[in-house]
Amino acid sequence: MPLPRLHAPGRADMSFHVFPPGSRKLPGWHPSCCSGFTAMKDLHLLPKVRDGWSYLYVEHCRIDRSEKAIVLRDERGKVDVPAASLAVLMLGPGTTVTHAAISALADNGCLAIWTGEEGVRFYAEGMGETRSSAAMLQQARLWADPRMHLEVVIRMYQMRFPEPLDPSLTLQQIRGKEGIRVRQAYATASRDYGLPWEGRNYNRNAWNRGDPVNRALSAANSTLYGICHAAVVSAGYSPALGFIHTGKRLSFIYDVANLYKTEFAVPAAFEEVAKGSDRLETRVRHRMRDIFSERRLLQRIVPDLQRLLSFSGGPEGEGFDEEEARPGSLWEPTGADVAGGVNFAGLQKETLDGGDDFGTGTP
Amino acid sequence: MPLPRLHAPGRADMSFHVFPPGSRKLPGWHPSCCSGFTAMKDLHLLPKVRDGWSYLYVEHCRIDRSEKAIVLRDERGKVDVPAASLAVLMLGPGTTVTHAAISALADNGCLAIWTGEEGVRFYAEGMGETRSSAAMLQQARLWADPRMHLEVVIRMYQMRFPEPLDPSLTLQQIRGKEGIRVRQAYATASRDYGLPWEGRNYNRNAWNRGDPVNRALSAANSTLYGICHAAVVSAGYSPALGFIHTGKRLSFIYDVANLYKTEFAVPAAFEEVAKGSDRLETRVRHRMRDIFSERRLLQRIVPDLQRLLSFSGGPEGEGFDEEEARPGSLWEPTGADVAGGVNFAGLQKETLDGGDDFGTGTP
Repeated sequence: MPLPRLHAPGRADMSFHVFPPGSRKLPGWHPSCCSGFTAMKDLHLLPKVRDGWSYLYVEHCRIDRSEKAIVLRDERGKVDVPAASLAVLMLGPGTTVTHAAISALADNGCLAIWTGEEGVRFYAEGMGETRSSAAMLQQARLWADPRMHLEVVIRMYQMRFPEPLDPSLTLQQIRGKEGIRVRQAYATASRDYGLPWEGRNYNRNAWNRGDPVNRALSAANSTLYGICHAAVVSAGYSPALGFIHTGKRLSFIYDVANLYKTEFAVPAAFEEVAKGSDRLETRVRHRMRDIFSERRLLQRIVPDLQRLLSFSGGPEGEGFDEEEARPGSLWEPTGADVAGGVNFAGLQKETLDGGDDFGTGTP
Repeated sequence: MPLPRLHAPGRADMSFHVFPPGSRKLPGWHPSCCSGFTAMKDLHLLPKVRDGWSYLYVEHCRIDRSEKAIVLRDERGKVDVPAASLAVLMLGPGTTVTHAAISALADNGCLAIWTGEEGVRFYAEGMGETRSSAAMLQQARLWADPRMHLEVVIRMYQMRFPEPLDPSLTLQQIRGKEGIRVRQAYATASRDYGLPWEGRNYNRNAWNRGDPVNRALSAANSTLYGICHAAVVSAGYSPALGFIHTGKRLSFIYDVANLYKTEFAVPAAFEEVAKGSDRLETRVRHRMRDIFSERRLLQRIVPDLQRLLSFSGGPEGEGFDEEEARPGSLWEPTGADVAGGVNFAGLQKETLDGGDDFGTGTP
């Protein structure tokens, strides 16, 4: 019996897709060709993902709770998914999710991400209460320190060039160099696919009047933002604390997406325009999804982010996850942590969890 | 015809509840006693909430998209809700939400929050792409600056005392003073309700072995965390960037909840224990929900947070919201903003939006 959309060989829209963490390939699991039962079996084999990254994309099904797991149903059957094994559930078009399923995901520290009908656009996220904030705190420290902030900006530019950046370059000069690199990427794609290129230009108030290449680029970029958003949230960083871009809730997403735009979005957009104008944006989005899957982009972005925001000797890697129920620490001006859940009036000491002290504090 | 659970006078579980922004009371709307049609009509009257706060709580219904709005359905009928008028949709038990509804909420910059069956526990959030990050950036700046961080900590303690804190007190001494204040709150509640009090103590591995007052306190606190979480997220702050607590994804929630614990959670817990032991935790949670509604706690927390994190002369209030589609700015080491969406190679200048430049950068 065929099970819910676990298998769609030859179809551009992937419908049920596991990205196993890192290079660990699950036995018997083949993303682009699998049966429902194989999928169900393999999903149960997924490792705990506290230190890994598992992604599951679903569409056109109802997601409900099933004991300690979630269950995917459509008119053809059901598949159990152990939420504890997942880092991210990506909910595509045609999905309906119950409150109980969301609770199960939250209890298991699994992120829920709604992706758009017109690409892998992010909509919403969930988060476990006891997850460590170490990644975001490190990001905030770097963001708020002008010297380190600049260092991250330079690293982000460096990642786009094969050769080391001359340390004597000013930020303005590096931006100019980057402008040339991007223009060359467009020129190369224009030549490779025999398409004229008049420069990036669009108007969101007159979307359909853009030329085909510009419309294709916009579609490709929007899917790239989605996958980058998933990676940023999964890795525990804030989408808002951007280094190059600033001021928007998704500024960091724009930062990250720009690391991969010329490699993935630009050639895909030109390639699809060269094939014709029919259903252009849709074809671009499907092509991008295929590329993300084939090139394992999610598994590449997370380590890239970690390298980008790692500085030896820094305060990163505060491990609050050893014991899930620890209340965390109390901040000290000296930098030393003070245990939470302790009465500082000196009369009683009690064991507490999850912030259920007064931060001070008698619980 | 009665419409979906818009009306539940006398029932402890509110089922459809609008918290109008600030003191603006909607004509004809009465949260604890209303008809479905009144509700539907009034919802259409809700003001745009870019600068206000509207909260809608729903349960036991299906949420779907309806043209530009969302629609709530159950077996008895449907109610349209203009998502553009809402800041926060709180999804309670028994709700099911479609992908299309989530998209509508996201498109309208409305937060979606799943609240738990056992209180107002937060589960997941959505966010609009173009929302300003000014609030979170201000929080991150204060958080990362040791002097300002300490100032916020002191402010948080000051909020709990009617008299000004002696400036010569050390943080350790303030914590001791707070410990005494909290212990007095317990002692007062113990005396008022004629219940013995042996100190706050519980073990999450042996929940049912706690004494009734401790179990009631845990239930009351969990609902308080939920409402504080909703307020923090709605106001644009990060739950992770705590000032007193640190290291957890919800550290700031623990900070904020502690500002209100003795006022709301402690008396409610003792009061319900004094009434008997039947369904204790459930009664506590319902009592807390009633208190939140009667005392308009959500409308109080958001301004409290804004005052807490406001410093005159600081960089707060960066207004990136004037034009929703602006790409935000590019960060500059000098503190000056550089417009995004501009090619710094100097050959072309183009108008772009939403980060669709290379941050640099030729788009």
